[in-house]
Amino acid sequence: MPAVVNRAVIMACALTASHVLQVEALLDTIKWDSNGLVVAIAQHIDTGAILMQGFANRDAVATTMNSHLATFYSRSRANLWTKGETSSNFINVLDVFFDCDHDSIIYLGVPDGPTCHTGAETCYFTSAADILGSLQSGTKSALTTLYLLEDIIKQKKLEIEEQTTTSSNKASWTKTLLENRKLLCSKIRFMPLSMYTVGGTLA
Amino acid sequence: MPAVVNRAVIMACALTASHVLQVEALLDTIKWDSNGLVVAIAQHIDTGAILMQGFANRDAVATTMNSHLATFYSRSRANLWTKGETSSNFINVLDVFFDCDHDSIIYLGVPDGPTCHTGAETCYFTSAADILGSLQSGTKSALTTLYLLEDIIKQKKLEIEEQTTTSSNKASWTKTLLENRKLLCSKIRFMPLSMYTVGGTLA
Repeated sequence: MPAVVNRAVIMACALTASHVLQVEALLDTIKWDSNGLVVAIAQHIDTGAILMQGFANRDAVATTMNSHLATFYSRSRANLWTKGETSSNFINVLDVFFDCDHDSIIYLGVPDGPTCHTGAETCYFTSAADILGSLQSGTKSALTTLYLLEDIIKQKKLEIEEQTTTSSNKASWTKTLLENRKLLCSKIRFMPLSMYTVGGTLA
Repeated sequence: MPAVVNRAVIMACALTASHVLQVEALLDTIKWDSNGLVVAIAQHIDTGAILMQGFANRDAVATTMNSHLATFYSRSRANLWTKGETSSNFINVLDVFFDCDHDSIIYLGVPDGPTCHTGAETCYFTSAADILGSLQSGTKSALTTLYLLEDIIKQKKLEIEEQTTTSSNKASWTKTLLENRKLLCSKIRFMPLSMYTVGGTLA
């Protein structure tokens, strides 16, 4: 092996050793609870959706940082588990965030598929507002405003399309809005964001 | 008092009693841990930012549902506390979501001001990628893609403005993009979202 390769190998090893030391120093700053755990929240980097929440010990956080796959500690089974190891729906972690107290972390990443074992995108699909409003089990996701708005517009569009095929094509303000992107954007811009969520509030 | 008012009062009381029963039935479905707690995550309904994470007992969740203000249980002080009771930076809760196991909840709402006691918008402002990349303490928030992109564009705009005032006004592709909204939108649409986060990954 030529000397230049040896030097490159030594340099790579030194860099890796330095990275390992940095990760260890970072893990030293975490305030683990009496069971050696912190709360670990997996969040979708694009939609902002909270996908799931588990607990992580030092090994779980280190594994996540090295493999870039969200890894947790199962309190019931007393072992490490990587989300997706049975379903193949891994969560690819792009960054890990610590809170101000360093006792709670976010795995910010991109999921390969639905996170919940039920097949839902996120584990948080039961809305108290829905249940209290209708006495039926809520099934919507904890969508933030822009994604909720996207859902509402999609729903309105479907309703309009159904009306068009089943009844007379009568004039409708919603239809006019949906057919005129400029008008729709203007309407969206000038309505307070909270207006979109009124239907889903606990009030 | 006329009979019609009496009937209205009775009806209102019956509705309130019914609501209380519904809330109690909902609380009965929560799987509290051995200390009577669940993890409670406060999330900004507009930005999707995870603002803070605490723990909640039955009283804390009930108080949140009735007052619409995010309320937690302090394990160290062994008492209920409403976020904002000292800082006035309350979190106005619009909905509460339960995960599939009913042992973790989201308070989805609008904060009155910065949530963190440090004055930061959220408690999660320490990025492992920043620390591992620069050996310095990271100070960015756990922004999701669209908000990160907004931040990057804002930063680029500032840089261009500084260049314009301090040096010769030479041609720049970023400047052209920023001055032509149609071109900028086209660029944003055709770039994969993950491109924006490459600089912030752990890789």
